[in-house]
Amino acid sequence: MFIIGERINSTRPKIQAAILSRDADSIVNEAKSQFDAGAAILDVNCAMGLDKEADDMEWVIGVIQNALPAAGICIDSPNHFAIEKALEAYKGKGEVFINSITAEPERIGRILPLAVKYKANLIALVMDSGGMPKTRWERKAIAEKILDSVRRAAFEPARLYFDPLVRPISTEPEQAKEFLAAIGLIKELGGVKTICGLSNISFGLPKRSLVNSIFLSIAMSRGLDAAILDPLDKNIASTFLTTQTILGRDEHCKNYLTAFRQGRL
Amino acid sequence: MFIIGERINSTRPKIQAAILSRDADSIVNEAKSQFDAGAAILDVNCAMGLDKEADDMEWVIGVIQNALPAAGICIDSPNHFAIEKALEAYKGKGEVFINSITAEPERIGRILPLAVKYKANLIALVMDSGGMPKTRWERKAIAEKILDSVRRAAFEPARLYFDPLVRPISTEPEQAKEFLAAIGLIKELGGVKTICGLSNISFGLPKRSLVNSIFLSIAMSRGLDAAILDPLDKNIASTFLTTQTILGRDEHCKNYLTAFRQGRL
Repeated sequence: MFIIGERINSTRPKIQAAILSRDADSIVNEAKSQFDAGAAILDVNCAMGLDKEADDMEWVIGVIQNALPAAGICIDSPNHFAIEKALEAYKGKGEVFINSITAEPERIGRILPLAVKYKANLIALVMDSGGMPKTRWERKAIAEKILDSVRRAAFEPARLYFDPLVRPISTEPEQAKEFLAAIGLIKELGGVKTICGLSNISFGLPKRSLVNSIFLSIAMSRGLDAAILDPLDKNIASTFLTTQTILGRDEHCKNYLTAFRQGRL
Repeated sequence: MFIIGERINSTRPKIQAAILSRDADSIVNEAKSQFDAGAAILDVNCAMGLDKEADDMEWVIGVIQNALPAAGICIDSPNHFAIEKALEAYKGKGEVFINSITAEPERIGRILPLAVKYKANLIALVMDSGGMPKTRWERKAIAEKILDSVRRAAFEPARLYFDPLVRPISTEPEQAKEFLAAIGLIKELGGVKTICGLSNISFGLPKRSLVNSIFLSIAMSRGLDAAILDPLDKNIASTFLTTQTILGRDEHCKNYLTAFRQGRL
């Protein structure tokens, strides 16, 4: 189980301003603080709706790998030109993720060859042109369809991360259970992994960090392999750590006790 | 899913003193505050190692039902005389639990007839004379053995609550996973329920309430039916409430939003 830090996202005004003004220090600060908090991979989103996404992506990735060559990146873009430019730009030593494809053939056709060529990991949202799945079974069926396409392109299933799509409990209360059950069903497809963006679960509710962290913990216990989240949220970070300890992934509770001594719990 | 409040326990010095001095107000305060915090059933433990357990039990139960006739009780005793006296004493309108039997025939032989006679619910620890189970499968096997005895006595399985026995992660890190997996395996036996005392999980660690609450949340998502815990621990209470909401047991997030407005999250 690992964390992808979500904070370098141009929908945040601070990040948007840093990208527009080419303020490298702000980007480096966001990158370092997330990396130090345990996010070995950093999501990068520059999709501000302007024409310069590919250039912005190239610049941000250059800034990150210059300061933090060990950090992996997660290229978060709807634009395959920007994705390719980012893949070319990245020379760091970490893992690379493309975020994301869906079951839509056009998007798979454009992105999958890039993932193969650059040996990137690939995040696949379990949705198709019919929209969002409702049940665990619809989620599994879409994942199966994507897995078929990916196998035909000789892409390794071990680098495929399915996102079963979290929905807000405030408006779709039955969806959390379907999401959680889908984690196991999708993993039974064999060799593939699961990932999720966390924060959607609490959309529309107060105390979002409380809901996000409890949901994270339950999803981890079902076998979630990775999560895209804010590692600087103390609630979430301490929940992540404690859940790892409870699930037997922290020998002699070492990480837990260290975090306690450092005031991080 | 419901909560049994654990605070009226004579291993706590404050409770021990209240029992010894027949200080009814202190017992009523503990009962009311737990009941108001959502524990419809109150565990009562008077086993101070003195000879007066049966009398103490009778007195405490009298005090509780006098002040709070709606509160159920959970008679927590190793002593079948004390259990019987408690069952006789209770005239409240809540549910009654006997805490607890194991697979040991002598204990089953003494307690089961009381549970049948007084129509009490029965908590069964999944252990036998061989001691604590290690694996999920040992837990299931012991539960099966207990269920057999119970069925022969014409005791309804729906009133049987198995406790798969939480062990401290600090000393037995692999046991939490076995416990969690055992919840589902035991419930597959059909018609029976599961329960656990929570706090053992964090024995020997700092920030116990953090560990307890995350473990509660994961166990709830696996189908745990009841938990014996401290409902006045804000961390645990808010985790319980939020997990119910996440698991789709809180229509329109009503309880969650009310708790937020009342500052209980």
